[in-house]
Amino acid sequence: MTTNSYWFNDYLTPDLTLQHSVKNVLYTGQSKYQKIEIVQTGTFGVMLVLDGKPQSSEFDEHIYHEALVHAAMLTHPNPQSVYVAGGGEGATLRELYKHPSVKIAVMVDLDDQVVKVCKKWLTKWHMGAFDDKRTILQFKDAKAQLENETTKYDVIISDIPDPLEGGPAYLLFTRNFYKMLSQRLTPDGVLVVQAGFTTPGMSQVFTAIHNTLEGAFPIVAPYQALIPSFSSTWGFIIASKKYDPRKWSSAHVDGMIRQRVKGPLRFYDGVTHTGMFSLPKGLRESIDKETMIITEKKPVFAY
Amino acid sequence: MTTNSYWFNDYLTPDLTLQHSVKNVLYTGQSKYQKIEIVQTGTFGVMLVLDGKPQSSEFDEHIYHEALVHAAMLTHPNPQSVYVAGGGEGATLRELYKHPSVKIAVMVDLDDQVVKVCKKWLTKWHMGAFDDKRTILQFKDAKAQLENETTKYDVIISDIPDPLEGGPAYLLFTRNFYKMLSQRLTPDGVLVVQAGFTTPGMSQVFTAIHNTLEGAFPIVAPYQALIPSFSSTWGFIIASKKYDPRKWSSAHVDGMIRQRVKGPLRFYDGVTHTGMFSLPKGLRESIDKETMIITEKKPVFAY
Amino acid sequence: MTTNSYWFNDYLTPDLTLQHSVKNVLYTGQSKYQKIEIVQTGTFGVMLVLDGKPQSSEFDEHIYHEALVHAAMLTHPNPQSVYVAGGGEGATLRELYKHPSVKIAVMVDLDDQVVKVCKKWLTKWHMGAFDDKRTILQFKDAKAQLENETTKYDVIISDIPDPLEGGPAYLLFTRNFYKMLSQRLTPDGVLVVQAGFTTPGMSQVFTAIHNTLEGAFPIVAPYQALIPSFSSTWGFIIASKKYDPRKWSSAHVDGMIRQRVKGPLRFYDGVTHTGMFSLPKGLRESIDKETMIITEKKPVFAY
Amino acid sequence: MTTNSYWFNDYLTPDLTLQHSVKNVLYTGQSKYQKIEIVQTGTFGVMLVLDGKPQSSEFDEHIYHEALVHAAMLTHPNPQSVYVAGGGEGATLRELYKHPSVKIAVMVDLDDQVVKVCKKWLTKWHMGAFDDKRTILQFKDAKAQLENETTKYDVIISDIPDPLEGGPAYLLFTRNFYKMLSQRLTPDGVLVVQAGFTTPGMSQVFTAIHNTLEGAFPIVAPYQALIPSFSSTWGFIIASKKYDPRKWSSAHVDGMIRQRVKGPLRFYDGVTHTGMFSLPKGLRESIDKETMIITEKKPVFAY
Repeated sequence: MTTNSYWFNDYLTPDLTLQHSVKNVLYTGQSKYQKIEIVQTGTFGVMLVLDGKPQSSEFDEHIYHEALVHAAMLTHPNPQSVYVAGGGEGATLRELYKHPSVKIAVMVDLDDQVVKVCKKWLTKWHMGAFDDKRTILQFKDAKAQLENETTKYDVIISDIPDPLEGGPAYLLFTRNFYKMLSQRLTPDGVLVVQAGFTTPGMSQVFTAIHNTLEGAFPIVAPYQALIPSFSSTWGFIIASKKYDPRKWSSAHVDGMIRQRVKGPLRFYDGVTHTGMFSLPKGLRESIDKETMIITEKKPVFAY
Repeated sequence: MTTNSYWFNDYLTPDLTLQHSVKNVLYTGQSKYQKIEIVQTGTFGVMLVLDGKPQSSEFDEHIYHEALVHAAMLTHPNPQSVYVAGGGEGATLRELYKHPSVKIAVMVDLDDQVVKVCKKWLTKWHMGAFDDKRTILQFKDAKAQLENETTKYDVIISDIPDPLEGGPAYLLFTRNFYKMLSQRLTPDGVLVVQAGFTTPGMSQVFTAIHNTLEGAFPIVAPYQALIPSFSSTWGFIIASKKYDPRKWSSAHVDGMIRQRVKGPLRFYDGVTHTGMFSLPKGLRESIDKETMIITEKKPVFAY
Repeated sequence: MTTNSYWFNDYLTPDLTLQHSVKNVLYTGQSKYQKIEIVQTGTFGVMLVLDGKPQSSEFDEHIYHEALVHAAMLTHPNPQSVYVAGGGEGATLRELYKHPSVKIAVMVDLDDQVVKVCKKWLTKWHMGAFDDKRTILQFKDAKAQLENETTKYDVIISDIPDPLEGGPAYLLFTRNFYKMLSQRLTPDGVLVVQAGFTTPGMSQVFTAIHNTLEGAFPIVAPYQALIPSFSSTWGFIIASKKYDPRKWSSAHVDGMIRQRVKGPLRFYDGVTHTGMFSLPKGLRESIDKETMIITEKKPVFAY
Repeated sequence: MTTNSYWFNDYLTPDLTLQHSVKNVLYTGQSKYQKIEIVQTGTFGVMLVLDGKPQSSEFDEHIYHEALVHAAMLTHPNPQSVYVAGGGEGATLRELYKHPSVKIAVMVDLDDQVVKVCKKWLTKWHMGAFDDKRTILQFKDAKAQLENETTKYDVIISDIPDPLEGGPAYLLFTRNFYKMLSQRLTPDGVLVVQAGFTTPGMSQVFTAIHNTLEGAFPIVAPYQALIPSFSSTWGFIIASKKYDPRKWSSAHVDGMIRQRVKGPLRFYDGVTHTGMFSLPKGLRESIDKETMIITEKKPVFAY
């Protein structure tokens, strides 16, 4: 039953649509790369939508961003330099600065218009992190930018939109890109990638990314978290040269948080960590069966 | 983007609707208690819908029913007699018979029409379990039926629909009902309850059931599993007099499965068990903060 | 098939919804009386929506306003003074000023916020008519305002929203109100009322207004026009003391237009006039069978 | 506001969808040519849907079929032989048999499965007309069938589905087909064609058919009727060699009905006739401006 008049349709598949009531449209514009919208939904509050796909919502962006950032940061023993590909909302910066060890964070986003809009409308997301002195913000293609430099980072966070057909992001999910990222990491270095749906039947992008990363890194640790506004569990993958976050007990994670993290965490803690990395049997089987290697010639696309 | 013409709207809240494309309507009828429909959806295959709410789908009913049954069965050292309240699809029976220790299963469902329809249309669900010699099937109100007998069971499985306002089920989610269930359990006895959404913002029924069970049982162990066709994680709660399934390692669960379970499991295993019982921080906090006790005079209703 | 993400649902009945794709939300606000929205739809362009009901659209407001105004104006031999109840978009003023005989137009709208918003956003509607020297604009309840004055008008145009339950308009559709309007008209005077859906099965408000007007005026001439953005034919009723517009041939109407109307008409002409007043058999039968008299105690409400 | 769970979406355009609540799906099947469905909707009762497009509904099929048949039948002074292309529901037969002059009605429908389904499910439509002794029913392509015979008819009724891209009907809307129809008519002969939407902005098919018919017949008389379940006015065109139904007064039509029609008419009478043929100015202008001639190489397609 509903009495709402305005709706945003998130077309999950041709056979499944999630309809969000819309209370207000705060911003709508078209950048060089994509359509940008800030809408206020009835259930999940303010939401950033790019090319018709929800990116994050006021209600649960903390789940997404805490899940993305903290496990990776703790996997490195002392992360001082961090590279963020994408991350336009600024919430990835916000979370990584909860680690006082960080001395520099280079964020490279393709679309300055997205960042401009987020800076204005999503203050609850970035909380001023764009203005932190440690932030170096560049508007470039992360792939081209990394190819042209040799700096090495402790942690690289790939927080880019799903690889949509015709969209700008799909080349940043390939084997060659991941091999280059491996070269841009220090020996203790850690990569984390947002990696799409893990819902049964919709996990093809996730398992393909996982399989591709295994060709570039010795340790590849997949995990997931429920993002209610995506109506699904969402996948992340840590790839590392030395350390494996799956070996930690809940108590060990809680101990590291106490020692190394400043600022409140609403989602992530030791038990949550254990839950995130304990994937259900079916998903682990899908990962094991996956044979696809993502390349420029044979890319993978999200719906 | 969609080209489908027929849709089933699952109104999750007044502000959130999940639309399933409908390929076929296999059955539609009205029993004494509720509207019953069997529809074939584009994403999740055949689906049982009662009073407009999806109950289980061909695609993921194995997740729901394995999650409901096996952790509880393993919590009891040697379950021989099982009582099922509800369970109309027959899939709960199907799963519990994977435990060869079972000698008798009493299933009490209010609505003979639901069972009749499921028997005919959901053969993939029950796989003939209704005809197992150990099955005693009664069409009664489980509450009235249990009040009038004194038999004790090793395991009781509460697999009844959500407590909808005006629906038949809400009295089976109260403190008095749970206290009576405790008396119908043997000293080693275990109760498991399907307990509604655990998605952040929609977990009120779940936490209220949890809090109510804590007034009736010494050990109360909540857990969850993602049910894609509900577009949410779903909650279950084990209540027990002696044993706590949260203490087991993944390896221990896998060992018990090898020893005690016959028949394939697609969802449940040791790592899945660990993941199910490792609830995220926010949900654990909601559980801790909950003060509501569900009574006949102060019931709880799902949307 | 559709690829649009944003939709406005016009709930015609609980069983029928017209969904408009939304390209932009230009304004949204809440006045003392109602929710006001200006949205840009894919099919009908900019649309004014009050309390969730479309009032008029860029694409076809000319049909609505020409249908409302010109037949009534021509029914009076020389309309010099016109009273408009409602008419917030300003398009009713725009149309009546195409009759150069007009010397004064008193417009009384309850909601100054609606007029303010229309003035800013709907310039194509009013075309500056609010600023015409002949316009006297008052923000009052038309009923109270007319009760407290004795001025007589040549033409009265009732252009108020449908009588929604709980809305501000329903008292302006009653027998007493129409009787008072009759007293505020000169002997040659003409009233025209926008009167709701005439689609078969949805014409109850229309036929009740018609029947009520017959208790207050000797000549009552119902007519209709298709308004695509309402997905229906829409009813209007002319009530008059002396003249009957149903008696005119198409050629006679065209002659009057040439003589008396300045400015282009896109919808209304002689043949259109004949078509509007030639109601289909079923609607005429519904009118004949109607017995309801609308009073304050027994009002009529649109869905 | 709505509480319905099942919906049928009629995609009028990519930007406009009419949603019908579905109470029951009575039949669903796939013929050699198209998908066939019989659904019971909340507003319009039972509805025949072919390839996702509503064809006619219990609520208002009498409007469509009376509008299609009677004006054409009366245009001929004494129609004895009638040819129906399409007309699968049988309601076109039902209406033409209200003219006792008819001695033979040849109905040629491509799809025997459609007729079979309509015979069973749409008894209120055909009322047994398929079994009338004067009916000769053939399942063929009307174009091929007419090319291979030389019989001449008094009235030809083209009651075929809209020319959908990829559908079977579009070749029956071309100049060559209409020229052949002209040859299959007696000197007094009359053709009537169902001709699609006349709603402003959606009348391209209608005006193209009109323009094409003008190349094949000396008299071409367009008209329309509101079909609520299509949420639009619907166009029909009479093409004739001698007689013009636009010349009749309402009284003359009523006189002919009294003399020549047996059986009740719910929609069509003299005033309705006048209303149907008095098209609004905008539509008449669209007709006048149309230059397209529909040919096999340059067909016209409905959305």
